[in-house]
Amino acid sequence: MTIKKILIANRGEIAVRIVRACAEMGIRSVAVYTEPDRYALHVKRADESYSLGDDPLAGYLNPHHIVNVAVETGCDALHPGYGFLAENPELAEICAQRGIIFIGPSASIIRRMGDKTEARQAMIQAGVPVTPGSEGNLASLDEAKSEAARIGYPIMLKATSGGGGRGIRRCDDESELEHNYHRVISEATKAFGSADVFLEKCIVNPRHIEVQVLADRHGNTIHLFERDCSIQRRNQKLIEIAPSPQLTPEQRAYVGDLAVRAAEAVGYENAGTVEFLVTGNQVYFMEMNTRIQVEHTITEQITGVDIVREQIRIAAGEPLTYRQQDIRHQGFALQFRINAEDPKNNFLPSFGKISRYYAPGGPGVRVDTAIYTGYTIPPYFDSMCLKLVVWNLTWEETLNRASRALNDMRLQGIKSTTAYYQNILQDPMFRSGEFDTSFVDEHPELLQYSDKSSPEDIAIAIATAIAAHAGL
Amino acid sequence: MTIKKILIANRGEIAVRIVRACAEMGIRSVAVYTEPDRYALHVKRADESYSLGDDPLAGYLNPHHIVNVAVETGCDALHPGYGFLAENPELAEICAQRGIIFIGPSASIIRRMGDKTEARQAMIQAGVPVTPGSEGNLASLDEAKSEAARIGYPIMLKATSGGGGRGIRRCDDESELEHNYHRVISEATKAFGSADVFLEKCIVNPRHIEVQVLADRHGNTIHLFERDCSIQRRNQKLIEIAPSPQLTPEQRAYVGDLAVRAAEAVGYENAGTVEFLVTGNQVYFMEMNTRIQVEHTITEQITGVDIVREQIRIAAGEPLTYRQQDIRHQGFALQFRINAEDPKNNFLPSFGKISRYYAPGGPGVRVDTAIYTGYTIPPYFDSMCLKLVVWNLTWEETLNRASRALNDMRLQGIKSTTAYYQNILQDPMFRSGEFDTSFVDEHPELLQYSDKSSPEDIAIAIATAIAAHAGL
Repeated sequence: MTIKKILIANRGEIAVRIVRACAEMGIRSVAVYTEPDRYALHVKRADESYSLGDDPLAGYLNPHHIVNVAVETGCDALHPGYGFLAENPELAEICAQRGIIFIGPSASIIRRMGDKTEARQAMIQAGVPVTPGSEGNLASLDEAKSEAARIGYPIMLKATSGGGGRGIRRCDDESELEHNYHRVISEATKAFGSADVFLEKCIVNPRHIEVQVLADRHGNTIHLFERDCSIQRRNQKLIEIAPSPQLTPEQRAYVGDLAVRAAEAVGYENAGTVEFLVTGNQVYFMEMNTRIQVEHTITEQITGVDIVREQIRIAAGEPLTYRQQDIRHQGFALQFRINAEDPKNNFLPSFGKISRYYAPGGPGVRVDTAIYTGYTIPPYFDSMCLKLVVWNLTWEETLNRASRALNDMRLQGIKSTTAYYQNILQDPMFRSGEFDTSFVDEHPELLQYSDKSSPEDIAIAIATAIAAHAGL
Repeated sequence: MTIKKILIANRGEIAVRIVRACAEMGIRSVAVYTEPDRYALHVKRADESYSLGDDPLAGYLNPHHIVNVAVETGCDALHPGYGFLAENPELAEICAQRGIIFIGPSASIIRRMGDKTEARQAMIQAGVPVTPGSEGNLASLDEAKSEAARIGYPIMLKATSGGGGRGIRRCDDESELEHNYHRVISEATKAFGSADVFLEKCIVNPRHIEVQVLADRHGNTIHLFERDCSIQRRNQKLIEIAPSPQLTPEQRAYVGDLAVRAAEAVGYENAGTVEFLVTGNQVYFMEMNTRIQVEHTITEQITGVDIVREQIRIAAGEPLTYRQQDIRHQGFALQFRINAEDPKNNFLPSFGKISRYYAPGGPGVRVDTAIYTGYTIPPYFDSMCLKLVVWNLTWEETLNRASRALNDMRLQGIKSTTAYYQNILQDPMFRSGEFDTSFVDEHPELLQYSDKSSPEDIAIAIATAIAAHAGL
C-alpha cells in the first residue's frame, strides 16, 4: 500500500469514520480542526491534529490551507469526507498539483458530474434514462417557457451547479415559472457561483433510489446494490434503507446495471453514488455524487464491504477487492439520522450541551457519531449528531429492532429527531414498505409525541416503589 | 406467540440482552434484582422490576422466590440466562409445576447433561466420540488407579456434576492421582453437592471447539456452526472466535453433524452448545451446555440469527425459523470478554466505580454490556463487565478491526483486560490462527504493557501544543 498517512479534511462522525478505517489499515491519520472543534472526537481519535484557525468554517473551506497542512505533515493522501470541499474540484486539483493523493475521483470528473446539464448529456449518450428536460442550460425566460410548454408542467427549475437539495424550485404553471426564474438564478449565483439553470420534468412523488458504485483505475466497476432514501424532508434525507423494500429483484438488477453503466460512461474512479428517481417502473437518472455518502453505512451492513477502506485502496492504485459476483446482500439495514433538531418546532436546530449520551448496543446495532456526554454541539455546522444503523434478517424484524435501539439510546440536553422516528416506525404505510418522497409531508400527525424524555424511567420508579411496598 | 411477558432470572449484560429480545418481539420484560443491583441497567431497561431482597446473591439463587415473582407478576415464561440457576434442573421443574414456561430444555435433560458420566454414556450410544475414560463413576481410589493405568496418564479427574471449569484436576502419574482424589471429591461435595467423580484421558493442549445448536419440539435440530474458545485461562474463556480459523470445511461439517447428532440423541430442545476437544483430526465430546452461552454473540454475527429470539420462539412451541440449509456463515467474529481484572496482578478482580465509559462504534462493532459511566461494579458477582464483539469479512481484517475497536473504547476507573487483549492481537501465533488452550499460559510475555490508560491523549496534547506553537 503506497498510502501511509492521510489528512482528513472534515470533522464530526465522518472524520471519526475515516480515522477508524486508517487505524484498521495501519495508516496514520491527521485531523484538522477550527477552534470550536478543539475538543471534538475526531481530534482526540486521530494520530495527529492541526488547527485551521479560529473561524469556525473558513478553515474547513480553504483548500489551499488544508493541502498545505497535508504537505507539511508528510501526508501522502487526503480524504475529503462529505460536505465542505468534498465535491469541490479545486481541492482535487490542488492535491494533484502538490503531490497529495486525493481519495476520490479526478477534478475533471467531479466538475463534469457537478455540472447537471453536462451530467445529463453524458447519461443520455450512455443510454441511461434521464427525465425529459431542456437541452442544456436556459438562455432566457422565454426559452424556459417554451421548453416547459414542450415538456409539460409541472417542471423543476434547477441550478446547473446545484446539489444537496439546494437551488431547486418546482413550477406548476407558467406564472410560477415566471415567478421563480430569476430567483433561482439569483440563488444559484450566490450559492454556487454560477447563474446557469436548466429545467426538467417534475416527477411527482417519486421514490429516491440510489446505487453505490466502486470503480478502480484498472477498468473494474461494480455496484453494491441500492439504498432507498425516500424518507426525506425538504430534500434532506432522514431515514435511509438498504436494500429498498419496494424494488423487485429485476428492478434491483436493472438499477444496479444502470449505475455501473453511468459510472463507466464517464470513466469514474473511486466510490460514488448514482441517484435515481423511480416512479412505477420508470427509472430516471437524477445525479451522481462523487464522494462518500452519509448513508454508506447501510450498504456496509448488508454487504459486509468496508467502503471507506475500498476508497483508500482504490486511491492507492490497488484493484478492487471484489468482483461483482462476490457482492451479495443479506437482510435489511436502516439508518436514522439523529439530528439535533426539534421536529415539533419546524425542525429548528437545537444546539447545546449533551448532558447525557448512552449508546444503544446489542445485536444488529451500529453507531457512528462524534458526540459524547458533556460535548457541546456547536451552532456552526450541520445538526446531524449521530447515525444509528440497525440491521436484521427481515424487513419487519429490522423495524422492530430499530424501535428497540431508538429506545435503548439516551440523548439528553438537546432536542432530537428520535421520538419522531419512533412514530415513523409505527406508521402502517412505512411498515408496509410502500412510501415515496411525499411521506414526511403527508404525515404531519407523526409529529405528535410526548416530550417526556424517558417515560420508562418514571414507570420503573413507580413499579419499584409499589414492589417495595408490596414486599415483592 | 403464546408468550406475552417474560421474567428474566438474571442480571448484567445477559439480562439486558434478553430485555432487548423481548422488546423486539413485543414481549413485556420483568427484571429481578438484589439490593446491590437496584440501579443496574437491566433494572432500568426492563418494563418492570422487582426486588429479591438485600442479600447480593441469595435472591438470584432462590428458584422458589423467583418463580413466585413470575407467577405474581403475570409472566407466562422465564428466561434463566447463563450462570446462577441456568443449569439448575430445580428451576425448570418449579417453573413446570407453577405453569411458567421455562425458556430452555426440560429439567430431565438439564439433569442428564449435567451428570457428566450419564452424558458420556448417551454420547457413546449415539456414536459421538468421547475421550477414553472410566466406565461411570469411580467407587474408590483403587478403582481410580486401575482405570488410570488402563487408560494411560495423564488423566483428568472430574466431578460428575461439575462444570464451568470447576472440579477438575489433571494427574500426570499415580502419585498425583493419590494426591488429588480426595481433594476433588471434597471440592465436588462442597461446590455441587455430589461426591461422584470419574476420570478421562487428558487430551494435552487441545483446541476448544463448541457448536451452537437449536432444536424445536417438532423434531427439527440444526447447528449454527462452531466457535473456537481455545483462548482461555484456567478454563475461563477470554476471547472467542467464530468460525474457528483452524478448521477445514470438512472438519467444520463434521463437528456440526456431531453436535446435531448429540442433541438429537438426547431429545434436546431449545438452544444448547456441544463442546468438543479437538487435537489434530481427533474430536472428542466434552460436555453439553443446556443454556445460552456468553459467547452466543459471535454466532449471531456470522449467521445473522438472533439466538435469544429463537430460544423464546422454541419455548413458545413454534417451529424453528430456519432449516439447516438456510444457515450460512460469513466472515469472522471475535468476542473479547472485558473483565474488571488486573492481568498483571494475576487477574485479580478490580471492582469499583467506572469513572468514564465510552462505547466503541463504527462498522463491524457490537457491544453487549450493562455498565455506564458512574456505575459501580459490585464485588459480589463475576468480573466480566463488557463483551466487545467485532466482525469483518476476513480473518486478518477482523483482527485489525478488533485492535481498532479496543483502542476506541474508553473504560476508566478500574483495571481491565483490554490492554492484555491488544497484546494478544499482535502475537504472531494468534494472528496465524493456530493456537490451543495452552496459548495463554505459554505467552506470559503478553502481560507486559504500559499501564498508561490512554497514551494517545498524551500524544494529542503534545501534538496540539506543538501545532499551536508552530501556528499550523
